[in-house]
Amino acid sequence: MEQRTPRIVVLGAGFGGLTFCQSFKHPGAEILLVDRQNHHLFQPLLYQVATAGLSAPEIAQPIRAIFHDRPEIQVRLGTVEDIHTATREVIVDGKPERYDYLVFALGGRTSYFGHPEWAEFAPGLKSLEDAHRIRREVLDAFERAENTDDEAERRRLMTLVVIGGGPTGVELAGALIELSRQVLRRDFRRIDPTQSRVILIEGSPRLLAQFPEELSQNARETLEKMGVEVRTETRVKDLQRGKVLLPDGTVIEAENILWAAGVSASALTAKLGAPLDRAGRVLVKPDLSLPDHPEVFVIGDACSIVDCDGQIVPGVSPAAIQEAKHVSRIILDELEGHPARPPFDYWDKGSMATIGRSAAVAKMGPIQFTGFLAWIAWLVVHLLFLVGFRNKVAVLWQWFYSYLTYRRGARILIRKV
Amino acid sequence: MEQRTPRIVVLGAGFGGLTFCQSFKHPGAEILLVDRQNHHLFQPLLYQVATAGLSAPEIAQPIRAIFHDRPEIQVRLGTVEDIHTATREVIVDGKPERYDYLVFALGGRTSYFGHPEWAEFAPGLKSLEDAHRIRREVLDAFERAENTDDEAERRRLMTLVVIGGGPTGVELAGALIELSRQVLRRDFRRIDPTQSRVILIEGSPRLLAQFPEELSQNARETLEKMGVEVRTETRVKDLQRGKVLLPDGTVIEAENILWAAGVSASALTAKLGAPLDRAGRVLVKPDLSLPDHPEVFVIGDACSIVDCDGQIVPGVSPAAIQEAKHVSRIILDELEGHPARPPFDYWDKGSMATIGRSAAVAKMGPIQFTGFLAWIAWLVVHLLFLVGFRNKVAVLWQWFYSYLTYRRGARILIRKV
Repeated sequence: MEQRTPRIVVLGAGFGGLTFCQSFKHPGAEILLVDRQNHHLFQPLLYQVATAGLSAPEIAQPIRAIFHDRPEIQVRLGTVEDIHTATREVIVDGKPERYDYLVFALGGRTSYFGHPEWAEFAPGLKSLEDAHRIRREVLDAFERAENTDDEAERRRLMTLVVIGGGPTGVELAGALIELSRQVLRRDFRRIDPTQSRVILIEGSPRLLAQFPEELSQNARETLEKMGVEVRTETRVKDLQRGKVLLPDGTVIEAENILWAAGVSASALTAKLGAPLDRAGRVLVKPDLSLPDHPEVFVIGDACSIVDCDGQIVPGVSPAAIQEAKHVSRIILDELEGHPARPPFDYWDKGSMATIGRSAAVAKMGPIQFTGFLAWIAWLVVHLLFLVGFRNKVAVLWQWFYSYLTYRRGARILIRKV
Repeated sequence: MEQRTPRIVVLGAGFGGLTFCQSFKHPGAEILLVDRQNHHLFQPLLYQVATAGLSAPEIAQPIRAIFHDRPEIQVRLGTVEDIHTATREVIVDGKPERYDYLVFALGGRTSYFGHPEWAEFAPGLKSLEDAHRIRREVLDAFERAENTDDEAERRRLMTLVVIGGGPTGVELAGALIELSRQVLRRDFRRIDPTQSRVILIEGSPRLLAQFPEELSQNARETLEKMGVEVRTETRVKDLQRGKVLLPDGTVIEAENILWAAGVSASALTAKLGAPLDRAGRVLVKPDLSLPDHPEVFVIGDACSIVDCDGQIVPGVSPAAIQEAKHVSRIILDELEGHPARPPFDYWDKGSMATIGRSAAVAKMGPIQFTGFLAWIAWLVVHLLFLVGFRNKVAVLWQWFYSYLTYRRGARILIRKV
């Protein structure tokens, strides 16, 4: 490895892959960064694209533009098809790519708990394509409700179900009820959008299960005050087109059913030949490498790890970012001839979820806060981490304008083409 | 008509239909505004969405939001299927809608001069769907060029042809050459985007045929200095996938072929039972109504008219706006019992086309100007006419940032879903 230029292949340009490339600066190494998309997506704001608050380019940044001044980084738009750890090769769109180090950062995907057929009836929210589909179908349902004369059909069109009471589900439910109760309020003549229903279904006893109990309670009360029907301890028995079946026999008829319940690791983790957990995540060593392949690292939502303090590292973006920096440090040290592989140590900076206008919950260390203060904290943190100065200003403007006018900037129905 | 509420059906929410609804304020009348899209589209900036400068929501405004405080206006998202002038009915998605006055403002569509099969190989630019398709295909071609090892294939992928040298063609060609020569310049490692070709083909002897000859000449010189290959007096003999065939036997191989050559009226003009010109436009009376139906008006790109000064009214947005106001005045007068049907008088405010960064051509009455001054005039006029304060600020910010950084805000590849 000393003889030739070390080549690092990074799979995925999410928070993990992007941060790795940003941290890893070595004069003699070359990096190949592979992603299926041409952009890094700021996933925490994706629900706002789905609910017409922001436009897609505002939360996405072209990967090439991010690294245009890093000639040693080659960006490849392509699909990873296979990984041969024995020969140190990755197959991208049929073409083998040799690596000395592999950083696997392909993240997660929507998981339907063994019911892949539900994907058709209840889209998840992982990509801009997903967000556009949801935006189109939600806006279209209101248009069709305005046109129909059938009362039952109208009720169905104006009912939205969100499955999953984690941060994404809570944020979606809050944004959807605001869309119907406030944004669309005066826009229709035959229907009254404030009569629409948003139902949030969660299997466990409370929303935001990873948060302290008081914050879960606050989130629930806030959502209910806004008009969301919250059903905890409710598991979905079956999904059909426009229908949610509950164990007690209840059938909820809803044109739009959104899935925010489960995430599993990228299917490609299976190609690594390493032990996986039930969600398909790789059980990595304490330094984030594979048990038999010290040159292969798995970071972000694709790995499962308990850090050196015995803490289960959650599948959130700060963890992916910290893991990326850890791996970058290890590889840099090795290339400089100082091999040291300290175990990964996760620093929990806290967590936050927004519920709606002036309402959020946040926890930072021992401090918890809710309401307007938490909402402002949420806004500031999300703006700071959004990649790109242009996008920061653009998003700030959209939020400011929406806050003042109760309007949303991206209520545009664009058909499939 | 005095007994019941007069009902005005407006077809199309482009410049004509929108302006009509904005001007027509009568306490006793009700308006039904029908459009296939949920938004009014600011077409003059559509080429910037196609070339990744702006995002779709920045140049579109939800129709319902525009008229949310006008309860007498009902907005219908739907497709007009038929028009029965004898019984005064319009069929929208199978449902008849009665009218007392009909304002037909369905605009134009891309026309392929009798070769509808070309649409598949050379998309036109009339809707946000079109713009997204072009953006996706252009950005994707550069990505594929970076991946291929075949030199001829790479050249084909990096060649763009724009057919039609009117304002849209000139603006597209200028924006595409800037995209490759400046925006993408440092973003690839294996290809050199500045080696890409943009070819602008025009059948007549000069670009911007409606402009004074000096401005046409200036536009051509500016484009050529930027790197565009301009071919005037060149008609396309045939189009195939990725191939443009010229009469002299030349075959241009180009992955992206964009069509900006022809516009004809909406196909629905045929349903009006009135005489049409060759482009399908209705030959209306001097007051813009149908020869046999004084209660039916046709405005915008769907009508053909010589105004009271003998001037041929061009198919541009200021004409549609003026026609809409004229018709609004006529109907208001009639409802108030003062029937008067003055002929339409077109006021030519001038015309302008942007070519690229700091370059445009403009004509206002006897005054002509080019370069930076014309470009600033173009920016100001387009910002002023863009609907919505939110969009004005958002677009201004995108332009300002792009001007300073040579970057573009919407370089996002979103797949079909």
